Amino acid sequence: MALEAQISPEVFKQTMGLLAGGVAIATCSKIGVRQGLTVTAVCSLTMDPPTVVLCVNKNASAHDTMRETRRISINFLAADQRDLAVLFSSSKIKGDDRFDKARWIEMPGGTWAAIGALAALDCEIISETPVGQHSLFVCEIKFARLEPEKSSLVYFNRAFCKPTPVA
Amino acid sequence: MALEAQISPEVFKQTMGLLAGGVAIATCSKIGVRQGLTVTAVCSLTMDPPTVVLCVNKNASAHDTMRETRRISINFLAADQRDLAVLFSSSKIKGDDRFDKARWIEMPGGTWAAIGALAALDCEIISETPVGQHSLFVCEIKFARLEPEKSSLVYFNRAFCKPTPVA
Repeated sequence: MALEAQISPEVFKQTMGLLAGGVAIATCSKIGVRQGLTVTAVCSLTMDPPTVVLCVNKNASAHDTMRETRRISINFLAADQRDLAVLFSSSKIKGDDRFDKARWIEMPGGTWAAIGALAALDCEIISETPVGQHSLFVCEIKFARLEPEKSSLVYFNRAFCKPTPVA
Repeated sequence: MALEAQISPEVFKQTMGLLAGGVAIATCSKIGVRQGLTVTAVCSLTMDPPTVVLCVNKNASAHDTMRETRRISINFLAADQRDLAVLFSSSKIKGDDRFDKARWIEMPGGTWAAIGALAALDCEIISETPVGQHSLFVCEIKFARLEPEKSSLVYFNRAFCKPTPVA
């Protein structure tokens, strides 16, 4: 049964819940203190320069540090890292405390890769565009750490999933 | 086994292959002639205004029509629409001929919704930013047609997949 509607906040939320996406953790740090958050709003942009797009809510505690330092990591989570996705979207545990439940390794650009992630991207923000309550960051990837044999954590219809091939 | 590398075109492609994403068809039309292409570079941006980001290669035949008309649809494909995803990325079948294999319905903004898609978004491009070989379009959603009980077609590691819940 199809539902047809002008866009309202409710319809927007329902619609966006139908956009499947890889789950990632974006991190940054300032004076040695790390911050990070779970995101699904990441997409590939172009190969030259090698860039991805990341959309971050201005209310996110890491947002201003990202803008200021320009250095972030984007970690594509593996299917077995659901707990990490939940932790990095928790309203109770904040800041550097979120990093205690996983092992992290510093990348050449000074950003942090989650051990066990499918991919960790060491990025520099090269442009930002404010749109409503969010900033749209264009991030140039400088270095990557991959564990490419793993499966991906995917968010779809308010559930954590993994991709399985269709016939 | 982790692989660590400076970004090269090969590493970029391998890394982006690890970013799972919902598969979509973006369409536009001009003088009644439709064009469309399969994309995975779509992500949610912000609720006010209700926007998504879409990245399109400047070489895509639909790119210039999108820039000119500003009116596009973005159709999140259902798991059973793999053939449509393949068709809309074919190098042999172009333009309006691609539309023959599915049923389409016109939305209020004059854009086309694929019947059977999980969601069809009737959009207006409100800004564009060129980055390398691609344009980054910010698209305001005006209207949506949803078939929300369906599963999603997901592209991951060069394979068409569907999301299955993780325990």
